[in-house]
Amino acid sequence: MLLLHRAMVSGLQQACRLRSTPSRLCIRACSTNDSFQPQHPSLTFSGDNSGTRGWRVVGTLLGLGAMLAYHDHRCRAAQESPRIYTKEEVSSHTSPETGIWVTLGYEVFDVTEFVDLHPGGPSKLMLAAGGPLEPFWALYAVHNQSHVRELLAQYKIGELNPEEKVPSTLETSDPYVDDPIRHPALKVNSQRPFNAEPPPELLTENYITPNPIFFTRNHLPVPNLDPDTYRLHVVGGPGSKSLSLSLDDLYKFPKHEITVTLQCAGNRRSEMTQVKQVKGLEWRTGAISTARWAGARLCDVLAQAGHKLCETEAHVCFEGLDSDPTGTTYGASIPLARAMDPEAEVLLAYEMNGQPLPRDHGFPVRVVVPGVVGARHVKWLGRVSVEPEESYSHWQRRDYKGFSPSVDWDTVDFDSAPSIQELPVQSAITEPQDGETVESGEVTIKGYAWSGGGRAVIRVDVSLDGGLTWQAAELDGEEQCPRKAWAWRLWQLQAVVPAGQKELNIVCKAVDNSYNVQPDTVAPIWNLRGVLSNAWHRVHVHVAS
Amino acid sequence: MLLLHRAMVSGLQQACRLRSTPSRLCIRACSTNDSFQPQHPSLTFSGDNSGTRGWRVVGTLLGLGAMLAYHDHRCRAAQESPRIYTKEEVSSHTSPETGIWVTLGYEVFDVTEFVDLHPGGPSKLMLAAGGPLEPFWALYAVHNQSHVRELLAQYKIGELNPEEKVPSTLETSDPYVDDPIRHPALKVNSQRPFNAEPPPELLTENYITPNPIFFTRNHLPVPNLDPDTYRLHVVGGPGSKSLSLSLDDLYKFPKHEITVTLQCAGNRRSEMTQVKQVKGLEWRTGAISTARWAGARLCDVLAQAGHKLCETEAHVCFEGLDSDPTGTTYGASIPLARAMDPEAEVLLAYEMNGQPLPRDHGFPVRVVVPGVVGARHVKWLGRVSVEPEESYSHWQRRDYKGFSPSVDWDTVDFDSAPSIQELPVQSAITEPQDGETVESGEVTIKGYAWSGGGRAVIRVDVSLDGGLTWQAAELDGEEQCPRKAWAWRLWQLQAVVPAGQKELNIVCKAVDNSYNVQPDTVAPIWNLRGVLSNAWHRVHVHVAS
Repeated sequence: MLLLHRAMVSGLQQACRLRSTPSRLCIRACSTNDSFQPQHPSLTFSGDNSGTRGWRVVGTLLGLGAMLAYHDHRCRAAQESPRIYTKEEVSSHTSPETGIWVTLGYEVFDVTEFVDLHPGGPSKLMLAAGGPLEPFWALYAVHNQSHVRELLAQYKIGELNPEEKVPSTLETSDPYVDDPIRHPALKVNSQRPFNAEPPPELLTENYITPNPIFFTRNHLPVPNLDPDTYRLHVVGGPGSKSLSLSLDDLYKFPKHEITVTLQCAGNRRSEMTQVKQVKGLEWRTGAISTARWAGARLCDVLAQAGHKLCETEAHVCFEGLDSDPTGTTYGASIPLARAMDPEAEVLLAYEMNGQPLPRDHGFPVRVVVPGVVGARHVKWLGRVSVEPEESYSHWQRRDYKGFSPSVDWDTVDFDSAPSIQELPVQSAITEPQDGETVESGEVTIKGYAWSGGGRAVIRVDVSLDGGLTWQAAELDGEEQCPRKAWAWRLWQLQAVVPAGQKELNIVCKAVDNSYNVQPDTVAPIWNLRGVLSNAWHRVHVHVAS
Repeated sequence: MLLLHRAMVSGLQQACRLRSTPSRLCIRACSTNDSFQPQHPSLTFSGDNSGTRGWRVVGTLLGLGAMLAYHDHRCRAAQESPRIYTKEEVSSHTSPETGIWVTLGYEVFDVTEFVDLHPGGPSKLMLAAGGPLEPFWALYAVHNQSHVRELLAQYKIGELNPEEKVPSTLETSDPYVDDPIRHPALKVNSQRPFNAEPPPELLTENYITPNPIFFTRNHLPVPNLDPDTYRLHVVGGPGSKSLSLSLDDLYKFPKHEITVTLQCAGNRRSEMTQVKQVKGLEWRTGAISTARWAGARLCDVLAQAGHKLCETEAHVCFEGLDSDPTGTTYGASIPLARAMDPEAEVLLAYEMNGQPLPRDHGFPVRVVVPGVVGARHVKWLGRVSVEPEESYSHWQRRDYKGFSPSVDWDTVDFDSAPSIQELPVQSAITEPQDGETVESGEVTIKGYAWSGGGRAVIRVDVSLDGGLTWQAAELDGEEQCPRKAWAWRLWQLQAVVPAGQKELNIVCKAVDNSYNVQPDTVAPIWNLRGVLSNAWHRVHVHVAS
């Protein structure tokens, strides 16, 4: 039932902005490895299920003064011999036509009539339709209260077959068999390797993205590493020494914690595909997320190995411990100048939002390169070396580069373009979504904006008429140092819908503090890999008459 | 006659790219204070003027193998009693209809028939129409050779009145009376204060812009400062001491020399004016130029005064010695973090292209802030101080800021936007020019590209069809460190004109190494001050049938 009142969300977001407690309030039941196992005993429903009755609640929730009025509801929950359903049966009830069912523990609920009353909005509750509530309640801890459970009890229609177990659909010969279980809210673009993004309506709900719905971009199966035996190899060379660092060794470096937004180079690729086919996963607007990262600064580790900034161009190469069956590991590099600059704050991170890294995000150690494309934030980090050349990895040299729209797969010369490091200014609309119907009168428009290289977003312009006229949105989120603005700004605009308007072409564009702007259209920045898709974001909505 | 063969230009450009001799070959007769005084005695014409004759030259110039064919020409130069003209008479001969006249020393030439044969192109010779050749020959030293003078002699029609002096049009009460004399090629946007840009056909002729045609953006009259008594005051504060530095004192700091492009925030404002009126000078594409600057690093000077980088935000404020009659001086500031960063290479410059600064460019000392808007490169520098706030100067707080297109002079809140520091990615076409007619077959397109913050330009895309299809241009100029690419790239493209095409809509757009791009159109970046005009540059040309 995801009883998530907007006032509570707001309070939760405020709490999430506090540097000292960035995410603990948002994330519960989230194990170190971000697997979601329904926690049946503690969450099993214990409300009063006696009798069919009509009822009305008019009151205050959590003392916040929120007025909620629920219409009469026929409770079907308190059956002497509960009806038994299979998970498959539940999973087929995901629309008003079939009925909208959810489960909590072994109990099954028909919430069809409640969906439109859900204080957090119907779309959030619909994310759980046909499946368990636990992963969502874990994101929004406000649900775990007795009055919420009492409300839910009214909708009980039966129970799951207690003999049914979680089906194992993965074969043991599958290299992905050991991948962690993921949050069901994630929109999956590829299962193997796992690539998924949070839906827009969750993406900008919190300034700090909860770990379980942080976008995941894997190139290979997720390694299962033992933190006790884990070692990071820092390779020595002339004038430097080799290091083999355990996790405990890394903990001994000064702990550095910063809020950083990561974005995949392919974010918003689906819009490029609409111009002309590209090679790549169909990311929508969600291949971007923000976390508090903590770890050792790379410059401190390199300094301990005896590395110094040199006059000649050099690169720090990273290798992951994820590999394909032939032994090829993921790899990438960044310029030594960035790695050695304390102000660039490159981390060897072992914590994400106050917890050990989830497995999907690089447990036990990943690189975090603020302001730089996600592809260089190598996960499951195994090896660091300083080299005269960039990493020879496929992903450094034959991928993640931008080209002119005129270049195709017959003419592309990957050596002719620099590897993507800093990303350009970006923004997108997360609410309303394309094709939705909005109320006449006033519309709330929300989204995110971010720029690479630590450049702060200074303004987001929003248009309701496809770009003819503009209004500046209100920027939320942390004020950051103008040269080290590593994290996004969330934004919103309350706009009057012009009377008589039947549809709106909503557009957003951001400006960073170098006054770079987003290009108007996608076609002139189209490229064969579909990266760097940062044209104005456009959604077309209908206005309810 | 500006006998400037393309091969020579090319060689000259090569020479100009050499770090050790950036500009000496390009710049002659350029005094410290960049005033141009015709140097009559040394340049007075001494060719063979005997007889009317028809002639044809087919040969090699300077051993470069260039083939030049000149058609018959009736020489009118060798009159026993030369006809006498006034400067005013000469100045009225600037078109094929009136005849195209030029002077060299006291001699007057009618070059109407030669214009189309000028090896450097007709447009370059036309820059001198109605006036003296000396300023242009000073830019292009290849003219000062006997065979060029012999060629010119054929076109002599008379001499200037020797009693005529340079007219003094400035009154002594005029605060601008002491402004230096400028190069006549400059396109003047405002005489008082003096603001002028080089014409497009000269702008990208050299990688290093010759001092006399470097764009000039003055806010006040040019002060006439005595280098012997000049002092730079570095103001002390808590933990630092005051310094009073003579030029000799500045020379004692390590001399640091770098190539830096300066761009005015208002460059290409004229394109914004076409969308809607703005307040500001009508700069076309020429409010940008490149020089080799040498001086003391600001970080070294601040360190000597005892300044250190502090954790809290701070700013280095600069005051010029230029002032209006009320005593208000020009001022601006940059963040202390940039000023103290040796890698940011902020200079207190006393040399421009190997010469003392010209008066119009800040003699004897100006600030050079690589990658940052021209307005912060304070000229005639008198005072430097470290402050907790930005400069309170009008030009820091009430000018040189960007706003949404929806903001007008009734609604503008200057405090709501950050002062422009780094500029966005920029490019423009300098050849061909808007409205020109180009030959069918093949067209040469030339221009410049630059980005702020030391971000290197990695690609320039050019379109002949208004942006539907694109070709990547060839980048010329110095390869630079990717994080310290302070100077522009010149570019060109030889493109096939599609058969039967009657007109071309030529467009260019640049990409920098953060993969920021230029926006497609001007209207969505329009702002009330007309700054930051960096949309795709477009020229419309006709194709000769």
